[in-house]
Amino acid sequence: MRYLLLVFLLITTQIEAQNNDQKQINEIYNTALTNGSGYAWLNYLSNQIGGRLSGSLQAQKAVDYTKKILDSMGLDRVWLQPVRVPKWVRGTPEFAYIESDPGLTNNVPICALGGSVATPLGGIKAGVVEVQGIEGLKVLGKEKIQGKIVFFNKAMDPTNIDTYMSYSGSVDQRYAGANEAAKYGAVGVIVRSLNLRLDDFPHTGAMSYGDTPMESRIPAAAISTNGAELLSATLKLNPDINFFFRQNCKMLPDVDSYNVIGEIKGSTYPNEILVVGGHLDSWDLGDGSHDDGAGCVQSMEVLRLLKATGYKPKRTIRVVLFMNEENGLRGGTEYAEQASKNNEKHIFALESDAGGFTPRGFSFDCNQANFKQIESWKSLFEPYLVHLFVKGGSGADIGPLKNDNIVLAGLRPDSQRYFDHHHSANDTFAHVNKRELELGAASMASLVYLFDQYGIK
Amino acid sequence: MRYLLLVFLLITTQIEAQNNDQKQINEIYNTALTNGSGYAWLNYLSNQIGGRLSGSLQAQKAVDYTKKILDSMGLDRVWLQPVRVPKWVRGTPEFAYIESDPGLTNNVPICALGGSVATPLGGIKAGVVEVQGIEGLKVLGKEKIQGKIVFFNKAMDPTNIDTYMSYSGSVDQRYAGANEAAKYGAVGVIVRSLNLRLDDFPHTGAMSYGDTPMESRIPAAAISTNGAELLSATLKLNPDINFFFRQNCKMLPDVDSYNVIGEIKGSTYPNEILVVGGHLDSWDLGDGSHDDGAGCVQSMEVLRLLKATGYKPKRTIRVVLFMNEENGLRGGTEYAEQASKNNEKHIFALESDAGGFTPRGFSFDCNQANFKQIESWKSLFEPYLVHLFVKGGSGADIGPLKNDNIVLAGLRPDSQRYFDHHHSANDTFAHVNKRELELGAASMASLVYLFDQYGIK
Repeated sequence: MRYLLLVFLLITTQIEAQNNDQKQINEIYNTALTNGSGYAWLNYLSNQIGGRLSGSLQAQKAVDYTKKILDSMGLDRVWLQPVRVPKWVRGTPEFAYIESDPGLTNNVPICALGGSVATPLGGIKAGVVEVQGIEGLKVLGKEKIQGKIVFFNKAMDPTNIDTYMSYSGSVDQRYAGANEAAKYGAVGVIVRSLNLRLDDFPHTGAMSYGDTPMESRIPAAAISTNGAELLSATLKLNPDINFFFRQNCKMLPDVDSYNVIGEIKGSTYPNEILVVGGHLDSWDLGDGSHDDGAGCVQSMEVLRLLKATGYKPKRTIRVVLFMNEENGLRGGTEYAEQASKNNEKHIFALESDAGGFTPRGFSFDCNQANFKQIESWKSLFEPYLVHLFVKGGSGADIGPLKNDNIVLAGLRPDSQRYFDHHHSANDTFAHVNKRELELGAASMASLVYLFDQYGIK
Repeated sequence: MRYLLLVFLLITTQIEAQNNDQKQINEIYNTALTNGSGYAWLNYLSNQIGGRLSGSLQAQKAVDYTKKILDSMGLDRVWLQPVRVPKWVRGTPEFAYIESDPGLTNNVPICALGGSVATPLGGIKAGVVEVQGIEGLKVLGKEKIQGKIVFFNKAMDPTNIDTYMSYSGSVDQRYAGANEAAKYGAVGVIVRSLNLRLDDFPHTGAMSYGDTPMESRIPAAAISTNGAELLSATLKLNPDINFFFRQNCKMLPDVDSYNVIGEIKGSTYPNEILVVGGHLDSWDLGDGSHDDGAGCVQSMEVLRLLKATGYKPKRTIRVVLFMNEENGLRGGTEYAEQASKNNEKHIFALESDAGGFTPRGFSFDCNQANFKQIESWKSLFEPYLVHLFVKGGSGADIGPLKNDNIVLAGLRPDSQRYFDHHHSANDTFAHVNKRELELGAASMASLVYLFDQYGIK
């Protein structure tokens, strides 16, 4: 009899807990959708500050602005964490054309890849060879590449439903293409933009020369997908055309910058830390609304929503706006180093860095016991059409926190439109929908709430 | 032993069927994403033809264009089904202002509701009373409404995740507001646009006067959400302000039009008919890309995808582009009448009329046995992140086909952005994403394929 009573109590307690969770989560969503702050913050970041490349004046303004907002939120502690960051500058607008016959030219939209060296002052004009990804270099060999501009034209695979898989499948030509092509004697590289649609926006992004000495580095630029189609078609008609491009970007010495951090102290387990974050820096061509202004304001909104719904966290919940994700990951690296140095115990970290679109779910980098616990929460998210709970990557900035005793997670918004905007002048505030942004923030806050309630296994 | 063998054979046959289904569905998605036609068709419908209000020249051009496309697809039969449709015309652009003091005016964006009568030639100027939905009329009573313009300002509820629920919750003031307000002596009505965001687009849509005689009908217009906020704020400062509006829309006699129909004859059960469709007419303010150009080209694409993947249907598969969904439903009504008259056996009908956004699933109007069969197919859609299989409504045009021996279904795309565009000048081709449109068509084709394979219970 006493045993039965115990079982009964246990079951009713579980049901009550589930009901309380559903109630709290419902309040989070309602508050986000009726009284959200993230969209207004993003408007400021995007339209009053704009693109926030590491080391730029705008990046510093974004640090100041977000710190000011966090200061106003009644958190227990807000601070700046110093980070040295690289400073690459684009210089004057790039210029390029296809010369199909001497004197007969078609201008095409290009942009320097982040980290690239400049062309000579007067630009480069040379013949072009087209390859499909880095593997294509070997096929052609040194003889055909020497003295030429290599045109990497591997398109993103349209058949993946998860567009990040298509990105992963083509990004190596952008990141390492110049360094590899230089080994074959190329004088420059032009890379097809990582964009699933055909349009006129060139998409920048990080590239690296590895240890290649300065004098052996060749300039690299992205060309719009329409430009890539035109260049490829022109080459088919006449393989002997020339391509001209000019850019005067350069790398300056490192400068001081900051991660922006705020926290609510936990009432019961203050030493267990939950992190939610995005990256404050962005590329310079658009205003970085999707990548990753959205993730920053959603992360700030998580703490605001927990407070606005009257929730008192058991554990310490921290928002971290990381600096320099795009071209160095210095912020994420520094944050993890300081956490380790201070013996901080991080049990959960969630990053939003995939655009401010309708949230579909989360991916988790964790052990099986924790994944099982997470799966038991799935039904709580059903009313919000958040259905995807998968194992997989989390976020670049929180990656350095990885160890055996932490759950890392990434928000997974609908990915179909993301690469229309990513790293291009088309990443602007007008393309963020207020409700979609708010639903993402509410989903994140709900997940953080559950980890705060139940900890990790 | 023989029994065991039978069970074994049964199981392996089922596994093989499941594998074949997954293979066919995968081919459908791959074909849609690599070699889709719907986006180019929609481009023509939207940018070469434009808004297609019933009875307009554009509606006729849309009939001609889509018939021509169906004719080119190698179907077994393509035909036009005559329908008489209402012809309402907007006339010259509407004009409205708030007069906060004599001579002190603020213009606000309005548009006549579909079916409304005109104002007198010189417009109407009168005092304004604000109400929250139709229920608000009773609260104020005849004394306060007599001689006034009624301003229906019930906003869509932002807390529903399914935005159609919010639409349903506010649409009565648009559809019946004028007719109800007239009973209280109102001289006109202004209705807050059914839009979840704040912007400057007025959203039109159908309204009805019921049996009210012509001389007792009062004009009705929608005001943009920003305009509604301004009007409401102005009324709070001074309840005695005037509102002016002028519109010269009118209803003309019915005219001839058509449903556009094409079919592939079934090889095994040619008398069992599966319908897939959308509506060809649209409102006149935008180009009707989401509502419902998207649904039309997706439905045409379903037949093209089945043919392109080499699939030979067992049952007859028919695409129907319905005329006059927006202001009369004459096409859907006529189609069902003809089907009944000809003793046609329809077993399944699927409509896409909720925008060309990322597909989330389907809703079904059917009995439990069929719903159980449908649920057994869920896992086939998982790789495409199509997860929502719910009971509920289907589509307005296929509704008249309802009986006990048919499954009706509606595509359920992500609904967060839909009412940013719906029935306004903001419903244009630029807001449709090619991949999202294609994923919807592939999802529809996959469901049609499964009903063709397995029939209904």
